[in-house]
Amino acid sequence: MKALVYQGAGEKAWQEVPNPQIQQATDVIVKIETTTICGTDLHILKGDVPAVTPGRILGHEGVGVITEVGDAVTTLKVGDRVIISCVSSCGKCSYCKQGLFSHCLADEGASGIGWVFGHLIDGTQAEYVRVPFAENSVQLLPEGVKNELGVLISDILPTGHEIGVVLGAVKPGDVVAVVGTGPVGLAAIATANLYGPSRVIAIDLDANRIEKAKELGATDGVLSSDPDWKEQVLALTDGLGVDVSIEAVGIPTTWDMVLDIVRPGGHVANAGVHGTSVDFPIQDKWIENLTITTGLVNTNTAPMLTRLLAQGKLNIAGFISHRFKLDEIEEAYDVFSRAAETKALKVILEA
Amino acid sequence: MKALVYQGAGEKAWQEVPNPQIQQATDVIVKIETTTICGTDLHILKGDVPAVTPGRILGHEGVGVITEVGDAVTTLKVGDRVIISCVSSCGKCSYCKQGLFSHCLADEGASGIGWVFGHLIDGTQAEYVRVPFAENSVQLLPEGVKNELGVLISDILPTGHEIGVVLGAVKPGDVVAVVGTGPVGLAAIATANLYGPSRVIAIDLDANRIEKAKELGATDGVLSSDPDWKEQVLALTDGLGVDVSIEAVGIPTTWDMVLDIVRPGGHVANAGVHGTSVDFPIQDKWIENLTITTGLVNTNTAPMLTRLLAQGKLNIAGFISHRFKLDEIEEAYDVFSRAAETKALKVILEA
Repeated sequence: MKALVYQGAGEKAWQEVPNPQIQQATDVIVKIETTTICGTDLHILKGDVPAVTPGRILGHEGVGVITEVGDAVTTLKVGDRVIISCVSSCGKCSYCKQGLFSHCLADEGASGIGWVFGHLIDGTQAEYVRVPFAENSVQLLPEGVKNELGVLISDILPTGHEIGVVLGAVKPGDVVAVVGTGPVGLAAIATANLYGPSRVIAIDLDANRIEKAKELGATDGVLSSDPDWKEQVLALTDGLGVDVSIEAVGIPTTWDMVLDIVRPGGHVANAGVHGTSVDFPIQDKWIENLTITTGLVNTNTAPMLTRLLAQGKLNIAGFISHRFKLDEIEEAYDVFSRAAETKALKVILEA
Repeated sequence: MKALVYQGAGEKAWQEVPNPQIQQATDVIVKIETTTICGTDLHILKGDVPAVTPGRILGHEGVGVITEVGDAVTTLKVGDRVIISCVSSCGKCSYCKQGLFSHCLADEGASGIGWVFGHLIDGTQAEYVRVPFAENSVQLLPEGVKNELGVLISDILPTGHEIGVVLGAVKPGDVVAVVGTGPVGLAAIATANLYGPSRVIAIDLDANRIEKAKELGATDGVLSSDPDWKEQVLALTDGLGVDVSIEAVGIPTTWDMVLDIVRPGGHVANAGVHGTSVDFPIQDKWIENLTITTGLVNTNTAPMLTRLLAQGKLNIAGFISHRFKLDEIEEAYDVFSRAAETKALKVILEA
């Protein structure tokens, strides 16, 4: 089969590789119909994730059809069309029993399971993929839901929802700010609206992205390049700050921003993937009764999001900016990696 | 009357001052019978809290008898013996309605109300004190409860409970670590046991304090001067870290420690008062599904703690290390400020 193979920092190739095989009785093989590219894939390509070694097939999002099932698999069958979760999990360990599937303790890959596709095992940017612990790690794509929307449930929509909105504890009437309106920030905006907030404020350096955020549910937008951006945000509250402040970038500047605008008693939900440590001004914040959360998606809300999607209650078609054939994946990476210029959000690849 | 008056950094004096007067219809005047000294008072004396200006009467903890009530006070009367909360609150603003009394928006003092005694208004280390918003800021001392135990409900016990244990979300079966076993840490240990933890680990540099912590409910103790302190803590868990990690010191070293020993999916509750910013290794922690909380006590759980105290269900007599007469307060400060040497915990002052 063909697959996108990591060759070491800065290098990748769409090349012929052996087809995946069932290794454990709980595995299935999926023929990929639709996949996409994540910001994390760009980090890997920069060499920022040393656990990814040359020869690894990239990608952790996908929709496809099961072509083979392991002997222990009873609830899935050949021909089922499924959404593959970016997080794999055994369903049996102490973390799985708490719904913390991202910290599953089963022994696949070097550090347990969780996020392993395109990281510790071969991923979904390929014609076929082996899915471990499949019964706990895929779900059926409902009739009538397009693959290109289903693939947004692999990672991006649950990440914005679980790590931004659920951990941020958004509740009716809240003023929610989302700093960074790339795909994760947009997913937080789209799903925050499930909880009846009074305002959802999109904050970004890019006016185009703010407009897109408004299409997807932001009530207000603030350009973070404006010198008075903070005053603009506070003017959209009662003056005391936002109830929930969601970080969806992953750099020290945006970390500082979410802390700057949250009210005493508020929530800061970090959804960004960070590469360096940050300063925490605890000499000012110890007294503010803040709750700060971090996390990798568990995809425990993926079934609920899929139901809403099937009912037409999630307005997420606007996440998709470009479409390519799977064998045009190197061109797709090029477009995705120049997002500021190409206005790329989610780039869909169809087999 | 006599009162302990702040004279500027490093200076205080027990001196004659005018008696407090009712200023608002919601005030009461309390004749102090019992007060105590808090670590925060030492910070103020060092000059670390610039909002405290020379001439301010210190102290924010006290038990006493009401001698005068304002015209709007209907639920308290002259002669009532009350525990004064360190936090005053109007009970009517948007923060009070959420139980966030520490962030009350009423206009007493320069920055709203909340912690104002011995800070923005005159405090409790005096023969008499004016208590604003008294009906929402004091509670009756139950019959049979000694003043010296009641005064622990003014601040220290609710602080350890609310900011350590409640925000840390301690639940049955949890392994709880408390870094720093001064009065706040001990209060967290004593109240963590209300929630059925499997272990409560006391961590401190001082072996005497660890022994005291065990008397007050710690199941295990680890000396943080041991080079393998972290391994000792992990050995008391399933190897993955503690469920709840409570910081009760307020310096960068102990902040690092609580982050070092918490498991993925765990809670870090910061109860320490910090003077400088800290480093947050978010490049490692973004993926760990942590919840980190900070806060100033609301005293919203003070009534519950008082009920348990009256029933003999809180073993806190061991918090008291020394007793003085109120007019010996300068000697009491000296003993309290040399705690490592004098083994001082809570130093009780009786009128």
